[in-house]
Amino acid sequence: MNGTVPEVMRAAYIDAVGPADAIRYGELAVPPVGPTDVLVRVAAVAADPVDTFVRSGAYATPLPLPFVVGRDLVGEVAVAGPGAAGLAVGQRVWCNSLGHAGRQGSFAQYATVAAERLYPAPAGIDAEHLVAAAHPAASAWLALFRHGRLRAGETVYVGGGAGNVGGAAVALTSRAGARVVATARAEDAAAVRELGAAEVLDHHAPDLGARVRGAAPDGYDVHLDTSGHGVLAEAVDSLARGGRLVAMVGLGTGPAALSVGGLYTKDASIVGFAISNATAADLAEAARGVAGVLTDTPWRPRIADRLPLSMTAEAHRRLEAGEVRGRLVLRPSCPLDLLTS
Amino acid sequence: MNGTVPEVMRAAYIDAVGPADAIRYGELAVPPVGPTDVLVRVAAVAADPVDTFVRSGAYATPLPLPFVVGRDLVGEVAVAGPGAAGLAVGQRVWCNSLGHAGRQGSFAQYATVAAERLYPAPAGIDAEHLVAAAHPAASAWLALFRHGRLRAGETVYVGGGAGNVGGAAVALTSRAGARVVATARAEDAAAVRELGAAEVLDHHAPDLGARVRGAAPDGYDVHLDTSGHGVLAEAVDSLARGGRLVAMVGLGTGPAALSVGGLYTKDASIVGFAISNATAADLAEAARGVAGVLTDTPWRPRIADRLPLSMTAEAHRRLEAGEVRGRLVLRPSCPLDLLTS
Repeated sequence: MNGTVPEVMRAAYIDAVGPADAIRYGELAVPPVGPTDVLVRVAAVAADPVDTFVRSGAYATPLPLPFVVGRDLVGEVAVAGPGAAGLAVGQRVWCNSLGHAGRQGSFAQYATVAAERLYPAPAGIDAEHLVAAAHPAASAWLALFRHGRLRAGETVYVGGGAGNVGGAAVALTSRAGARVVATARAEDAAAVRELGAAEVLDHHAPDLGARVRGAAPDGYDVHLDTSGHGVLAEAVDSLARGGRLVAMVGLGTGPAALSVGGLYTKDASIVGFAISNATAADLAEAARGVAGVLTDTPWRPRIADRLPLSMTAEAHRRLEAGEVRGRLVLRPSCPLDLLTS
Repeated sequence: MNGTVPEVMRAAYIDAVGPADAIRYGELAVPPVGPTDVLVRVAAVAADPVDTFVRSGAYATPLPLPFVVGRDLVGEVAVAGPGAAGLAVGQRVWCNSLGHAGRQGSFAQYATVAAERLYPAPAGIDAEHLVAAAHPAASAWLALFRHGRLRAGETVYVGGGAGNVGGAAVALTSRAGARVVATARAEDAAAVRELGAAEVLDHHAPDLGARVRGAAPDGYDVHLDTSGHGVLAEAVDSLARGGRLVAMVGLGTGPAALSVGGLYTKDASIVGFAISNATAADLAEAARGVAGVLTDTPWRPRIADRLPLSMTAEAHRRLEAGEVRGRLVLRPSCPLDLLTS
């Protein structure tokens, strides 16, 4: 069906911000394609917790209405604008920055994506793993390298090494020639060690703080807590001179106690970032890291469930209930359905 | 007397860390000069609060004993080692990194300084202003440019714009083409405006927080509180997207409440630093800023008092009592005294 693009498509969208039930599944016009854009025929999407913040309005960002939800996609080029250099019809591609800042989302049969936000899919990686990796692996890459300024030979703490962001962080750190100390549940320790962690500490150990410090007597150059359960003051204590604590979790996090004296006497910093703020250039650099972690390491994202695109509202409800451990991957129905509908 | 170096000198020193009364004033051997060192005949020194932390042991750092106290000096080259490139006998020089990390201090008639830690004195600036500027202006430069990554066109908050660090920060920011909003006591506002502040807000205004935010509706790119009186959570709230809060004060600061969510959602960071950790390369770059602020702007450090070197213990007592507003400059007695003693 390459080259044949219908006029309408099925999409998961909202007419106004609101609860998960506000998500409609129905027909919208296939979006236009600008000169430096690509129209992507979507093969798979993944639902991010941040999608629910955009949908509810908790994360204020410009939204064209009706607004197709969702940030990530994997698909193939259906139409390439004349200025979409290097992208050919039929090429497998992926994106992780739709659905905010005025851009329509990915949860549809077709999505228009600016060429600079579209990356070639690495060979040999299936669509589900790739789309499930798009958000957590890019987050881990940005945390470690863009904001944490990680260099080979340094020591990194990864809180929550068995999660999707944490696992990608362990694998990326190890691949970069740095030493990783991670926490995980006891039953996940072996898997996290396989990703390259030098030490895996039990989340539930009563003396976890002492073990974390003992595993890096000179302190951590980069501290990355992906679990949201870390204690800020202890984390700062465990930093090396010049250490960087990268803060990326917790829309629900309340105020934590911080000793500024503990920071400045050792030239340490706390670097906050949200992937939503990343520039297209930073995301493109992160995309190479995402491809690298999938092709060079054993890490694969954990997929909690697979759903049809028509169940997007259900996916949001599950994310908001906090009951999902892993990624929710959704697939739009085949475009052929539309042609006959 | 150029070229004539005695064997002994007068110095303010300690035999062990302890209270201000532990400081002795007496004769020590003039220190040896290594191949890339310079022996400086000291004209003036300044007493820093950090000198009292080193002396008391509160700031743990390697100290050779007996240990000459003090960090800053202005003087002239008495002897230049064969590898001390570009430094000639009689040249006026200054330094702000003695007296910690194994290096002897500056409070003596002579001090050996590694050539890379010695900077040419700017023409037309007297020794007292230069030595009094050495620590606060270098601190302000490092805070703004090295750690705050300030660029032209940005907006900077300086808490305590009438202090020595704050005043240097206002003048350096304005000189760099950035906009400054500062706080000060009402009676100091005009002077701070003269240094280039676009707005000066009254320290004691009951609605200070609202005024600070109102003066920069898009937020502050760099936040620098030199007073130690700022409220961390409010400071983070006032940051622009990508803003940097530079933390450099408060050995006595207790834990403060911080909302990590407020940091990461706007890619903001808290960057702690202490000048004691600065590399020789960073200090050399800062030294050019110190010369620049003295030669290009009306800023001059406030000098609270001038004392003979023999009153070093008294200077430490005054600093520890918190009663000094400005810099304490001390002068060693003339080397001639020694030759005849």
